[in-house]
Amino acid sequence: MTELAPPPQSIWYDTTVRQVCIIDQTLLPHRLEVLALETLADACHAISSMQVRGAPLIGVTAVYGVYLAMREAPAALDSALLQLRATRPTAVNLIWALERARNALDPVALEQRAGKALELAQLMEKEDITVCEAIGEAGADELEKIFNAGKRDCVFNILTHCNAGALATVAWGTALSVVYKLAARGIPLHVWVDETRPRNQGASLTCWELQQHGIAHTLIVDNAGGHLMQKGQVDVCLVGSDRTTSQGDVCNKIGTYLKALAAFDNAIPFYAALPLSTIDFELDDAGNIPIEVRDDEEVTHITGRNERGEVSRVQLAPDNVDVYNIGFDVTPARLVTGIITEKGVVAASPQGIASLLSQSGDL
Amino acid sequence: MTELAPPPQSIWYDTTVRQVCIIDQTLLPHRLEVLALETLADACHAISSMQVRGAPLIGVTAVYGVYLAMREAPAALDSALLQLRATRPTAVNLIWALERARNALDPVALEQRAGKALELAQLMEKEDITVCEAIGEAGADELEKIFNAGKRDCVFNILTHCNAGALATVAWGTALSVVYKLAARGIPLHVWVDETRPRNQGASLTCWELQQHGIAHTLIVDNAGGHLMQKGQVDVCLVGSDRTTSQGDVCNKIGTYLKALAAFDNAIPFYAALPLSTIDFELDDAGNIPIEVRDDEEVTHITGRNERGEVSRVQLAPDNVDVYNIGFDVTPARLVTGIITEKGVVAASPQGIASLLSQSGDL
Repeated sequence: MTELAPPPQSIWYDTTVRQVCIIDQTLLPHRLEVLALETLADACHAISSMQVRGAPLIGVTAVYGVYLAMREAPAALDSALLQLRATRPTAVNLIWALERARNALDPVALEQRAGKALELAQLMEKEDITVCEAIGEAGADELEKIFNAGKRDCVFNILTHCNAGALATVAWGTALSVVYKLAARGIPLHVWVDETRPRNQGASLTCWELQQHGIAHTLIVDNAGGHLMQKGQVDVCLVGSDRTTSQGDVCNKIGTYLKALAAFDNAIPFYAALPLSTIDFELDDAGNIPIEVRDDEEVTHITGRNERGEVSRVQLAPDNVDVYNIGFDVTPARLVTGIITEKGVVAASPQGIASLLSQSGDL
Repeated sequence: MTELAPPPQSIWYDTTVRQVCIIDQTLLPHRLEVLALETLADACHAISSMQVRGAPLIGVTAVYGVYLAMREAPAALDSALLQLRATRPTAVNLIWALERARNALDPVALEQRAGKALELAQLMEKEDITVCEAIGEAGADELEKIFNAGKRDCVFNILTHCNAGALATVAWGTALSVVYKLAARGIPLHVWVDETRPRNQGASLTCWELQQHGIAHTLIVDNAGGHLMQKGQVDVCLVGSDRTTSQGDVCNKIGTYLKALAAFDNAIPFYAALPLSTIDFELDDAGNIPIEVRDDEEVTHITGRNERGEVSRVQLAPDNVDVYNIGFDVTPARLVTGIITEKGVVAASPQGIASLLSQSGDL
């Protein structure tokens, strides 16, 4: 493992060299490398290849991508928005962020667009930090109640899926922001980390991030969570979301639904922590969410560090095997105990989501 | 991939060289290698390192291990039984097979023990084939009814977890025996294969085996099955079992419980196919099944074929991460539609299991 201290954020604008910088998340946990995005194509590639991932971070990266595009060709706003829109289909706040950029830049003279886009990206970067910190506080209020009502003398066991941490946002994270805030309040915590096949964001990103923050955690395979819940070893499940419907149905990383079923079957609270920008207030039917199907090789091959210390890829499956690599699933609202947002915790129900709509005017 | 035709069985006795032969399953699907077991230590290592795995195959291998022990030291029967017993804790028919060997060999003169043990192992090998073929026919009768009652003009989609195939038994398999028998009846089939982390028996063994048999199949990550069930893309779930209680609770590869929850939530039939030798008729409480905790490195590292074609291991997780690698979980009887055995299909209930007890006299 590298000994470098991590950069303070997942994305930032380096004012000295005038570059957009990201952590290349495809190399973690084996190498911590900072990558400069110099062109629109760089930004599109960073999103589609998952050098950056996580709904909130995708949104901020996309607006930085608009800035890079405006630096290159300020007249080509529509084309830039279309290219960025096409990078990933499921996370709704990619659409939200690009609409915001369109509204901000459309009325602006060509020579001012790059400056305006940079200003917006930096604003959204700051907003994301504020929002995620607020999600953490709201979630910590809710979970602290559960901890206090239960086994106060024991470790509080939280199970999470994928990475809904600082690496999925600009800083703090969504689900993991709650974890960090609980830890700051002195709650004795332990996190069960699902490895999250096929891209292993749990094993590679969440474990790395929790190590950096000194939070006790244990890596498990995605198959193990149900057994742990049966055995009373999970107090609460806490995940992020890529898109939540007006009904409170939560679209998140593939496998989330299975954990929600197990939580429900064992009467364990199941929360999704998410910014209002990931709520699709106009979408009633989760069946209409476009679910991303990704490359077969994410399943048949896996990247890790070989015995010579090199990041290397091996093939797991037989040659020529058929694969179906679906990226997200939908957890029905009936399985979700609550939705944790920057505006507080609401029920996963049409009423709960509607109560947030009135507060989303500043989005 | 190798071009070799696979051996006819997962284990067999080669009468020419007087050796017990197995397929080394840790090298599949990348290399098909036959390994000779020459000593008791070889047999113990083959079971504990999972060169052979699957409850029925473990049982037969153990009795061949007794034979190898008796060839070395016929007076050391108790010690051999103890060493074999310690290889893996969860599958009950390891105990059953060793008890059968003890009963057969205890009364026998030392100089006749090796011959008697070989005879028993060869008998149990043949019995396993007969039993697994009968499981296949019984399951095919049951599933053919489901197919006929449903969409007869479409492909019948079966989801399976881990490998309950010919490679988990001597031949045919348990769950996959049903698949092979359905295919032989001309039912148009497609199998969704869970990769089955951490050891990927689905990706490496089930895909390989289904390729050999020409059965259409698609590899998915363990996280994906719930989504497929929500979307109506699974008609039936079909798994094996390492130990089933008198109440009909099914202990099987970790992650089975999650698939059973999803099947139940989507009104999809969920079957376990298993020989009577894996039923623990005296065990009421599944909580008393010893669940194997295996090595951390099965989770933190993974073996595959690198770009030079070599079987090679890479590390997935950060250094020094804590891991909990639990091998099995228990699916409560309430989630199981039926238990498919060589004596027919019964309800996963005390009554259903009791009805099998009367037929288990010849075990």
